[in-house]
Amino acid sequence: MTDSSTPPPTDNPVVVELPPVFARHQAAVGAALRAELESKTLPIYDSLRYYMGWADANGTRRHGPEGKRLRPTLCLLACEAVGGEPADALPVAVAIELAHNFSLIHDDIEDGDRTRHHRPTLWVIWGEATAIVAGNNLLAIGDMAAHRLRAAGADTAVAAGHILTERYLSMMEGQYLDIAYEGRTDVTVDEYLAMIERKTGALIEGAVELGALVGAGGSGDVVDGLRAVGDDLGRIFQIRDDVLGIWGGPALGKPIGADITRKKNSLPVVHVLEHARDAEKRELQRIYAGDEIAASDVERVLEMMDGLGTQSWCQDQAAARWDRARARLASLKLSTDAAREFLELGEYLLVREV
Amino acid sequence: MTDSSTPPPTDNPVVVELPPVFARHQAAVGAALRAELESKTLPIYDSLRYYMGWADANGTRRHGPEGKRLRPTLCLLACEAVGGEPADALPVAVAIELAHNFSLIHDDIEDGDRTRHHRPTLWVIWGEATAIVAGNNLLAIGDMAAHRLRAAGADTAVAAGHILTERYLSMMEGQYLDIAYEGRTDVTVDEYLAMIERKTGALIEGAVELGALVGAGGSGDVVDGLRAVGDDLGRIFQIRDDVLGIWGGPALGKPIGADITRKKNSLPVVHVLEHARDAEKRELQRIYAGDEIAASDVERVLEMMDGLGTQSWCQDQAAARWDRARARLASLKLSTDAAREFLELGEYLLVREV
Repeated sequence: MTDSSTPPPTDNPVVVELPPVFARHQAAVGAALRAELESKTLPIYDSLRYYMGWADANGTRRHGPEGKRLRPTLCLLACEAVGGEPADALPVAVAIELAHNFSLIHDDIEDGDRTRHHRPTLWVIWGEATAIVAGNNLLAIGDMAAHRLRAAGADTAVAAGHILTERYLSMMEGQYLDIAYEGRTDVTVDEYLAMIERKTGALIEGAVELGALVGAGGSGDVVDGLRAVGDDLGRIFQIRDDVLGIWGGPALGKPIGADITRKKNSLPVVHVLEHARDAEKRELQRIYAGDEIAASDVERVLEMMDGLGTQSWCQDQAAARWDRARARLASLKLSTDAAREFLELGEYLLVREV
Repeated sequence: MTDSSTPPPTDNPVVVELPPVFARHQAAVGAALRAELESKTLPIYDSLRYYMGWADANGTRRHGPEGKRLRPTLCLLACEAVGGEPADALPVAVAIELAHNFSLIHDDIEDGDRTRHHRPTLWVIWGEATAIVAGNNLLAIGDMAAHRLRAAGADTAVAAGHILTERYLSMMEGQYLDIAYEGRTDVTVDEYLAMIERKTGALIEGAVELGALVGAGGSGDVVDGLRAVGDDLGRIFQIRDDVLGIWGGPALGKPIGADITRKKNSLPVVHVLEHARDAEKRELQRIYAGDEIAASDVERVLEMMDGLGTQSWCQDQAAARWDRARARLASLKLSTDAAREFLELGEYLLVREV
């Protein structure tokens, strides 16, 4: 028994809290997302309600966490930032979140991943064939949601639909490159960054751009400016994701080096593979040539990353983009509250632990 | 050596020729389809050029047959039938043909089919992960093509985009049902027809409706009428496909009963399973309970189909829809040439051998 008057010592870092903008839009986003699937009775939609976090595998309603909904939150914030009504951007916010989940459902199949957020993936429960179709269904439902932008006028709907499709195609091309890079140890940092620009960046950039487009009622300099901010935020999000994939384990009760064990191409791995020299380079090649990476080899890769300063180099890459984004945000004429919330959100993405 | 002055006896039926409307639109459709993929350099697009019939697996240009392009042909014909310029409907004709090929690429994975039209399927050559992404890419490229309808005005583009997404979703739901029905021997004729209404019918109906919508510059009675004709043509197309899957082998040099051997749910199979009685019903249940169907059992199923008149019952189902479609075509005010070509096309779908 410990003495309850003195808290036990802890190595846990200070918890980085989600900025208030997420909570502010959570209910509207959640309700709009659920509404898209509510009236659907074919059993395949049970699998989608499960994947979205609203139901258990047997269809029972579930009240667990649903994820941050980063993309819809960015979309509504961008809409507000240019003086728009956030509800007007919900159709496109919903479309992007469903497209994001479509990509996760298919990625799980393509990568053979059996769990995501501690739950079995869709294909594990319903089989690959149904999971492929379920993902496709979700993307089409997102497109149906986007068509509701008609209410904001045909021109805005047409412009937004075009941008959405472009971003989906870019995301898919990024996923193709990610698959094509699997097993390669000679992917350069530049190639890797160009890949995540598409795979992850396209939707995050699109969320910000389209929120701004709907809020402003058409294109223009401020929409272009926010699009560029969205591009930076997408890069920052993925770099931080990659850092957490190596060093973020303890906050989640997992060991350090998880993405090394998985042989996942990520920025720290690509960095060490590109910059290690001589004996270390040969050792890395040997480690990555095998089917599996032993715990002792994970330790060796981590040591080499330490020697090269890989973690702080990665964070520096993200920080440089954040400096650029902050300068751009200051130059845009945004509503004061929205500008502050963009700053909070960007700072959060840079240091988040989950 | 046979005497060349007297042709050898043959059991082959009279060859049913493709009506001229296909050849009339072939070049425009082919060029528009190729243009969508022409400038794409990522290797994944090689897999799509292969699947579309334009290249070999190694990327070499290929000059083989490309398929009938039924859906784009119907789309351009419907556009002409209401007095429109067929070129205006090309964006949507292309979108639908690419969506059709998207569905085939994914269906091949979902069904584990290793060949289509005597060529290895995409996943067999490039792997399942790449094939899933390639299919997704193709659908998105189709959507990009559809966005080109903007040139015809934002309202038409928005209306067409909405209908396209609805049809894609319906097609995907049909594919889900087809997967869900696999292995079941109690699927009713009504359930089966409702499934193919979505899986095959949605795109064919959409091709006719959208061609008419673009040609007429908006919705109206003639567009609704042609949509209903498209619905009938879709049903006729799939029923004839199912008949050919059982009895169409000889014209293609294949044995009778191919779809029985494959244990494929199709209208003749569903018909015999629903209508066989007593000892025959039990025998069918035994035959379909096994993992594979022996050649002798295929013979037995064919005998039972003969006994129930399954083939002519199927053809009668198609003929009844054709009677309805013909009456509707006569009631619509279509251009004389287009009306004649619709009649030729419908007659062809009813009796085609390939």
